[in-house]
Formats: sequence, C-alpha cells, structure tokens
Amino acid sequence: MSNNFVIEKLSAKNFDEFVSLIRRLADYERLEPPNKEAVRRLKNDGLSKNPKYEAYLGKISNNYVTYIMFFMGYSSFLAKPTLFWEDLFVLKDYRGKGIGQSMFNFCIKKAKERKCGRIDGCILDWNKPSIEFFEKNNAKRLNWLYYRINLVN
Amino acid sequence: MSNNFVIEKLSAKNFDEFVSLIRRLADYERLEPPNKEAVRRLKNDGLSKNPKYEAYLGKISNNYVTYIMFFMGYSSFLAKPTLFWEDLFVLKDYRGKGIGQSMFNFCIKKAKERKCGRIDGCILDWNKPSIEFFEKNNAKRLNWLYYRINLVN
Repeated sequence: MSNNFVIEKLSAKNFDEFVSLIRRLADYERLEPPNKEAVRRLKNDGLSKNPKYEAYLGKISNNYVTYIMFFMGYSSFLAKPTLFWEDLFVLKDYRGKGIGQSMFNFCIKKAKERKCGRIDGCILDWNKPSIEFFEKNNAKRLNWLYYRINLVN
Repeated sequence: MSNNFVIEKLSAKNFDEFVSLIRRLADYERLEPPNKEAVRRLKNDGLSKNPKYEAYLGKISNNYVTYIMFFMGYSSFLAKPTLFWEDLFVLKDYRGKGIGQSMFNFCIKKAKERKCGRIDGCILDWNKPSIEFFEKNNAKRLNWLYYRINLVN
C-alpha cells in the first residue's frame, strides 16, 4: 500500500465525502441511494454520542476513495460480539491496489480489539470480485439463507 | 394465544432459564452450546449497563418456553436501524400454539418503536418450519450470500 494512504473515522469534517461514496456504492450495487432526509438521519445516527453505526474513510493525497461501515452484533452460542460489515467500497479507479485489503485489515484489527468471535457479512450473489476478495480473506460461505422484512416502502 | 403467556426482558432473575433455552436451541440446530466461560460472558454482555444484545423470554404458567434475541444493525442506504434477529426458539412441546408468532410480533413492535427500516435474519437452509414461519411473516429471501470469518477456533 502507498504510504500516503490514511484511514479516518467518520466525522463532521469528512461526512460529505462519506455520503458521496455511499452514492457511488448504491450506483454500483444498482440500489437506491440515500435521499436528502436519509442523509440527515445518517448524520445524526453516525455522529451522535451513541452512534448507531461506525464508519471509516480512506484517503490518498486528500482524495477520499474508500469507506467501510460496520456495527456490532452478537452470537449467543459463542457469547461474543460479531463484527458485522455492512459496506466496504473502493472507487473504481483505485481498485487492485490493496486499498480494500487495507480497509478490511483495519476492520479485522477492530474486531480483535473488541474480542469478537466472528466477522460476518453479506455479498450480492452476482458480485464475483467481492466474493473472491472475502474468500481470499478466509471468509466461508454459510448454509444460512438471508431473509428480510421491509418495514418501509 | 393463551392469556397466561407473558413476555419478560432478560434479567438476573430469569438468566438461568435463558441459558437453558439457548442449550436446547443449540441441540436443535446441531451446533455447539455455550460453555461455562461463555455463560459468564453472556451474563456480563446481556445484563451490563450497555448490553451487547437484547433478549426476551416468554413463559406460560411459570414455565419459560421461548426466547428471542436480537441486536440493532444499520442500513446505510435507508439510513435507518435494522433489527437483526439472532435467535427465535420455542420448546418443542409448545410449538404450533402461536407462541413463536407472539414473540415475533413483539419483535416487530420493537422494530417499529425504534424506527427500523428492516428486520433481517438468517435461517439454516434445512430448517423448513422456520423458513415457512418467516415467509408467512412477509420475510423475503434475498440474493445475498452470507459469509463468515471465524476469529476463534
């Protein structure tokens, strides 16, 4: 990794860049990006005293090119927290340089610091590069089916 | 539902029954139950001032027959919390009486109170009764693959 790569915690200072990266990820995943009202909630929920999620941004020479977002789950059987990664995204022009790996290493470090038993996450079934990335990182595909109940339309 | 069915939050008072229900679930799912050290962590993590998970038990005539355990995740695109159910279990002799449904209704109520956008959860692919239960509750199977990195052996 380039030695001018820096990881920053989400803050009021880099919040706009965070939203712009989320929009780029939504575009890549062919999903709806956050609207104006959602951006306001993201700010409250991420920067309040008891944040509802954690996010970190990575920058190279003052360009924000990547972010990771996660939260803490829990395994009853292990009786240990689970770090659940929600998003890991690197801008297209910056892929293949080890940036995603640096971000994920950071995430593994956080999980170990917090004595997590597992790191869990979901990958869209058509997202081959992502599947290869996580399998390279010793992620095993489980025989669990992922279900969702939508409470908003 | 029988009108002597009561839902209680996890507390020091019902903690032993909670552990005994987790052991029964582990048995049903053919997974390792929590060991002694894990039980100690479960207690600290669930009953501390900032608990790492939430659990509720259901009892009929003073018999604890069901529990649900969940935690709060977050969706970046919706900018809303996600209620993530980890376990929902009803003792075999008490199934088919609407007890699981009462517990899950309680969970939906909690999700709405907290303005969650979604309720997410995973189901073992061979667990047909559970799949039917959640599909009846409008849960949709997503085209996400569930991956895990184990940090403990």
